[in-house]
Amino acid sequence: MAQLGNRLVTVNDYETLALKKLGSNAIGYYKSGAEDEITLRDNMEAYQRLRLRPRILRDVGDVDLSTTVLGHRVSMPICVAPTAFHRMAHPDGEIGSATATARQGTAFILSSLSTTSLEDVADNADAGLRFYQLYVYKDRKITEQLVRRAERKGYKAIVVTVDTAFLGKRDADQRDLFALPPNLGIANFQELKSDKKFSGASGNDKDSGLAAYIANQIDPRLTWDFIAWLRSITKLPIAAKGILTHEDATMAVKYGVDVIVVSNHGGRQLDTVSATIDALPEVVQAVRQSGKKCEVWIDGGIRRGSDAMKALILGAQAVFIGRPILWGMACNGQQGAYDILQILREELKLSMALVGASKVSDLEPSMVKNAVEYLSRL
Amino acid sequence: MAQLGNRLVTVNDYETLALKKLGSNAIGYYKSGAEDEITLRDNMEAYQRLRLRPRILRDVGDVDLSTTVLGHRVSMPICVAPTAFHRMAHPDGEIGSATATARQGTAFILSSLSTTSLEDVADNADAGLRFYQLYVYKDRKITEQLVRRAERKGYKAIVVTVDTAFLGKRDADQRDLFALPPNLGIANFQELKSDKKFSGASGNDKDSGLAAYIANQIDPRLTWDFIAWLRSITKLPIAAKGILTHEDATMAVKYGVDVIVVSNHGGRQLDTVSATIDALPEVVQAVRQSGKKCEVWIDGGIRRGSDAMKALILGAQAVFIGRPILWGMACNGQQGAYDILQILREELKLSMALVGASKVSDLEPSMVKNAVEYLSRL
Amino acid sequence: MAQLGNRLVTVNDYETLALKKLGSNAIGYYKSGAEDEITLRDNMEAYQRLRLRPRILRDVGDVDLSTTVLGHRVSMPICVAPTAFHRMAHPDGEIGSATATARQGTAFILSSLSTTSLEDVADNADAGLRFYQLYVYKDRKITEQLVRRAERKGYKAIVVTVDTAFLGKRDADQRDLFALPPNLGIANFQELKSDKKFSGASGNDKDSGLAAYIANQIDPRLTWDFIAWLRSITKLPIAAKGILTHEDATMAVKYGVDVIVVSNHGGRQLDTVSATIDALPEVVQAVRQSGKKCEVWIDGGIRRGSDAMKALILGAQAVFIGRPILWGMACNGQQGAYDILQILREELKLSMALVGASKVSDLEPSMVKNAVEYLSRL
Amino acid sequence: MAQLGNRLVTVNDYETLALKKLGSNAIGYYKSGAEDEITLRDNMEAYQRLRLRPRILRDVGDVDLSTTVLGHRVSMPICVAPTAFHRMAHPDGEIGSATATARQGTAFILSSLSTTSLEDVADNADAGLRFYQLYVYKDRKITEQLVRRAERKGYKAIVVTVDTAFLGKRDADQRDLFALPPNLGIANFQELKSDKKFSGASGNDKDSGLAAYIANQIDPRLTWDFIAWLRSITKLPIAAKGILTHEDATMAVKYGVDVIVVSNHGGRQLDTVSATIDALPEVVQAVRQSGKKCEVWIDGGIRRGSDAMKALILGAQAVFIGRPILWGMACNGQQGAYDILQILREELKLSMALVGASKVSDLEPSMVKNAVEYLSRL
Ligand SMILES: Cc1cc2nc3c(=O)[nH]c(=O)nc-3n(C[C@H](O)[C@H](O)[C@H](O)COP(=O)(O)O)c2cc1C
Ligand SMILES: Cc1cc2nc3c(=O)[nH]c(=O)nc-3n(C[C@H](O)[C@H](O)[C@H](O)COP(=O)(O)O)c2cc1C
Ligand SMILES: Cc1cc2nc3c(=O)[nH]c(=O)nc-3n(C[C@H](O)[C@H](O)[C@H](O)COP(=O)(O)O)c2cc1C
Ligand SMILES: Cc1cc2nc3c(=O)[nH]c(=O)nc-3n(C[C@H](O)[C@H](O)[C@H](O)COP(=O)(O)O)c2cc1C
Repeated sequence: MAQLGNRLVTVNDYETLALKKLGSNAIGYYKSGAEDEITLRDNMEAYQRLRLRPRILRDVGDVDLSTTVLGHRVSMPICVAPTAFHRMAHPDGEIGSATATARQGTAFILSSLSTTSLEDVADNADAGLRFYQLYVYKDRKITEQLVRRAERKGYKAIVVTVDTAFLGKRDADQRDLFALPPNLGIANFQELKSDKKFSGASGNDKDSGLAAYIANQIDPRLTWDFIAWLRSITKLPIAAKGILTHEDATMAVKYGVDVIVVSNHGGRQLDTVSATIDALPEVVQAVRQSGKKCEVWIDGGIRRGSDAMKALILGAQAVFIGRPILWGMACNGQQGAYDILQILREELKLSMALVGASKVSDLEPSMVKNAVEYLSRL
Repeated sequence: MAQLGNRLVTVNDYETLALKKLGSNAIGYYKSGAEDEITLRDNMEAYQRLRLRPRILRDVGDVDLSTTVLGHRVSMPICVAPTAFHRMAHPDGEIGSATATARQGTAFILSSLSTTSLEDVADNADAGLRFYQLYVYKDRKITEQLVRRAERKGYKAIVVTVDTAFLGKRDADQRDLFALPPNLGIANFQELKSDKKFSGASGNDKDSGLAAYIANQIDPRLTWDFIAWLRSITKLPIAAKGILTHEDATMAVKYGVDVIVVSNHGGRQLDTVSATIDALPEVVQAVRQSGKKCEVWIDGGIRRGSDAMKALILGAQAVFIGRPILWGMACNGQQGAYDILQILREELKLSMALVGASKVSDLEPSMVKNAVEYLSRL
Repeated sequence: MAQLGNRLVTVNDYETLALKKLGSNAIGYYKSGAEDEITLRDNMEAYQRLRLRPRILRDVGDVDLSTTVLGHRVSMPICVAPTAFHRMAHPDGEIGSATATARQGTAFILSSLSTTSLEDVADNADAGLRFYQLYVYKDRKITEQLVRRAERKGYKAIVVTVDTAFLGKRDADQRDLFALPPNLGIANFQELKSDKKFSGASGNDKDSGLAAYIANQIDPRLTWDFIAWLRSITKLPIAAKGILTHEDATMAVKYGVDVIVVSNHGGRQLDTVSATIDALPEVVQAVRQSGKKCEVWIDGGIRRGSDAMKALILGAQAVFIGRPILWGMACNGQQGAYDILQILREELKLSMALVGASKVSDLEPSMVKNAVEYLSRL
Repeated sequence: MAQLGNRLVTVNDYETLALKKLGSNAIGYYKSGAEDEITLRDNMEAYQRLRLRPRILRDVGDVDLSTTVLGHRVSMPICVAPTAFHRMAHPDGEIGSATATARQGTAFILSSLSTTSLEDVADNADAGLRFYQLYVYKDRKITEQLVRRAERKGYKAIVVTVDTAFLGKRDADQRDLFALPPNLGIANFQELKSDKKFSGASGNDKDSGLAAYIANQIDPRLTWDFIAWLRSITKLPIAAKGILTHEDATMAVKYGVDVIVVSNHGGRQLDTVSATIDALPEVVQAVRQSGKKCEVWIDGGIRRGSDAMKALILGAQAVFIGRPILWGMACNGQQGAYDILQILREELKLSMALVGASKVSDLEPSMVKNAVEYLSRL
């Protein structure tokens, strides 16, 4: 499929092709957002409402995209967010996507709901920087085991998803009663307790299978004490994924979280929460005011290199992409995921050159402005 | 029709199906708003312009939706607004909808223009909390009799509709010359004076039958003195339904009204008045500043649990739904109405969990923000 | 065509039917606005952006629409703006439209470009309040004669159109090279100099016939001195039609103008000027601050009674409609024009009742609010 | 094709016809903007968001459009921006477009990437005011030679394009792998080094041919020192084309630039930068505050005479059009380009008359207002 590279020149080109290749069940699961998908759309549109203010006549002969996340050097500040069930997109599965990310020299977050176990990914994918995304099971021992297994296999951080006390209502999945294809399951529990496996079983007669699984297994009673507990059992850095307010950013810093991921779960949890790029400034400001060390990452709606650049301009240390990797996988497995990252890399590089920045640290707040600010200025 | 529950997962799904089942006359009457339907649409869109600000890591293992209205405990703060002519939607009629509401443990307001008399509803529907909506007839004795009958049959409040001096202009009804099917009539006057019955008779040659009926029978000369008179003849709590301004909220409180219902009659009276959720804050503030005890309810445009939650966040004690119950009835009679309430209950419960509230009183102003506020913030 | 009344219940219904009845040449001329028709659309949309704030429990049993314009009592504050060539819409022509307006008891402005002479209208239409709209011919004697003829025939004011130094660019008319049907002409010059007649002759090869006519005949060199001159030759009140700024409102008052008509010529002159309802407040304020007596009228985009009401709320003494009368004429001649006024009368009456006003002077600024004001209020 | 003049009455009419005449390769290249074309659209929509405030009763019998650019008198403030490859639109090529512009008595900027050499244009087109647009080649000697050649052939200024360190990403061109037709090339290098010629050769397998050419040849390391160097080698006035911020305007003035061209390259370089008319005020203000002499020109999105007028009102000395000339050429060669300028001339003249300005210097800031300013004013 080498010729794809000629014709698929944007992330959206991959999405268009992927929607032709995938079955309706997978499309419903991958594509949809919660309820009326206001936030899903807003995540993308909010980037389009921001206006860049480019600076000219700066030497941009060499644009260096490299930066660090949690002290690890990455070739660019665009990394891969945790998404479930990669083998539903392509047999290459999580080993493929993790390898593509490693080949690109950037960071990969493995989902708790992977169709390949964390050990299999670690053992079979190309070496690379990887973090483990944690859903906290009601059974706290399972949670601890997962952390231990991630530590053992060289994952460099625990990314606790904090916006999923229950699964958001995705109308499409409820209509379809979404379930995994029979040959797939939540691989981390393959040899463990079978009721953690999920697999092909559909839910009750009203909810998608996954929503029922989450309601049964995942702990909706988590409080900030959990962060303290997690800190007590592991030395790995802790990221809290799913913060959208300055109030919670302040709490996170207080509880010693190392990374805040500004995320609304790709618009899949609570509909009509703000776009992540709209929430970023208040989070960045709260962290700064705290005076503590805490990185801010962001995901949601990034489809262009310039989207990534805007997030960096507004204070994110790195950005993460969810669905785009799934579209890449669906089109062309590992290579498709690689190509997605390559497209974004080239777009980011070009955007930085044209905005007048030759390295990530050249990006600064005056380079972006909200479209409406131009409207009231005469 | 039990299998409907699997595929109709949103209120709008029910509307779509209902529009296939109903005749054009009924659709025209149920669906339409006044004139260009600006307010009808705005009622819904205004909710979508509000952004939720969710708080994380709060124990939401048990979300309790129960609250009180006028001191009566209800299982959730979503109740049923008065709408006319339920038997036009389904033979189950008002007995069906009142029963569905009772089974859901929440409050039901019976319309003055019901196709089942208030006695029949009280005698035949499951026991439940019910209020009586009053249109004030020019003949004040009729009005007094209606109040007495409602008292006798255990209705717990009189809800005076104050936005209907005349019926709003609904283009569709004027084009159709809307009239009830011949077998139906305004049941409360079955054994009374026949000119109060309305029934199948069409209006004059220019107005819908209902508009003519209202013009003939309902008193357009009401002033605040009417509230004083009503207070003098009944001990029941009095609600004023149809207030949209702080000025009138202040008047209402002054005249001892127990409940203000922020309502624009579902966008059916005066077009281009504000969406109710946009008017809510000024009403809530006026009541608070008065220092008097007065509940604020709201109706109009609520189609999702999160819409209800936003109204609660902004200070409503409870929300009421109009058309959704009609869609439920049209699809599946009593059970359809029940299912509509169930969908909203589950959506509200999930939304509260995801916003970080485990009981109604946890909802507070900082959890919502207008979308435009994000635009001018860089 | 009596049955039309049943089915055509809005002004827009008449427009829809008129567009089926008229030829493309007439449609192009009547319907179009200047260039990209931004202002044409904005004239209407601006009304829809305004939100009414209705007051309840006021006695609206008798709503009195009557008011005065220039001291003359009219049955309602909705009058008829000057539009050219009524006989192109229907053989009833200006006599028909003037009669319809007289039957409705309101004011009619006869266009300089009428297809019936001002004498014929005065002699043959039902008695009624009429004003004469003046385009100022380069030949000042012609202008003086027109004023004298209007005085003689009982027209009660001279309405000088001040926004037409040249005819605006209307793409449709340029593509069609608009010309009148051969049997019609500018009737006021029937027995005068033939080059003032215009009639069927098309323009040059690039402009519409009318644009060429205006360029040849109408004086683009008018200054405020013209008002002084006009004042010196007639005792009739003078209205300046086509003012959109507080600067010019201040000038008008200074030069003793009796009426300012806030108008953008129905979006037909300079595209992207503001909607008239958006310009109204600054004009009203300038007049008030001057302390002088000067009425403010408005036209442009009024299609609903509530549009008219909003203009009155914001300080207009009366509103004028242009195209709606042409649609009425095209559908049904004199009676169609009458029905249009009747629709607007009933809508205005109902809107006033529902906003809580039983007479025009009850309308006050707090009854309207811009939609965006609700957006930034939480 | 003389009859075209009758039916093509707007710039957009020409675009519509041109899109029928051109091949898809040329359409892709001429029409498209960078990435999602947000800026491409915004360039045009931003003009439509501005509201004109016309002044009445001013003598506009003679409207004089003439003005100066860099001290040279032009018949109107609408000139021609540099665009590449005119012979791809029509065999008349740059000689045709330069001649059309000269016949209209206004200024023409010849692109570095012309399909006719700067000498051929100078020798064969009608005499007229011309500037030379410079892309700075990595090989500084080539750059110097180009400047010398332009000086020798009477070009009156060097317009350095400063927004093209690399070519922007134009999805259409990447999908097509855009290349020139085999008979065309970059004519300025015909007798020079062949690798500067570009011509029909396509790029690498991933980029459009032109993007590859620019990446190979054009210097992305330019800094403000380049301006100093250019000043040192030529006495011609220097324009910096592609400035969008007050920061860079201040730099430009400091480095002695004679003209700032507010431009985003027609939305073809960095997507989501602001519309040029939105950026104009901050640039104008920065220049004014500097106290230095520097003209401000603007291009991007001008399709109507009133667009040009708005830019003049907001402080531009002259406006430049890019694509419209290409559409004119595609439709009818030299004459088409002439007609485009004629349409804009007549529209500008009429707009000035209707806004109350009889010469360019009558245009002043109070004549324009942003549409949103009307929204928050009650
Ligand atoms: C199909 C899908 C599955 C996801 N699964 C997970 C998951 O297992 N754990 C998690 O923390 N986030 C999950 N997310 C959320 C992503 O980590 C990320 O927040 C989101 O996809 C970013 O938005 P984007 O898709 O617009 O890039 C998932 C998202 C999608 C679209
Ligand atoms: C078909 C229909 C009939 C209605 N009849 C009445 C009525 O008889 N009395 C009344 O006070 N309100 C009546 N209403 C208004 C409702 O009580 C309520 O204000 C409105 O429906 C809420 O908006 P929603 O339909 O968007 O939920 C009616 C509304 C509809 C749609
Ligand atoms: C077809 C047509 C012809 C018009 N002719 C004249 C005219 O002769 N003199 C004049 O002052 N205004 C004329 N106008 C402008 C109207 O007086 C009025 O300003 C405008 O129509 C109001 O906008 P509306 O059509 O949206 O109601 C004309 C408008 C139209 C639509
Ligand atoms: C097809 C095309 C080719 C262009 N080529 C050049 C060029 O060679 N050099 C340059 O400085 N600008 C170039 N531009 C940008 C124009 O000078 C100008 O900035 C832009 O076209 C103005 O926007 P408009 O097309 O909306 O009028 C080009 C634009 C287009 C559309």
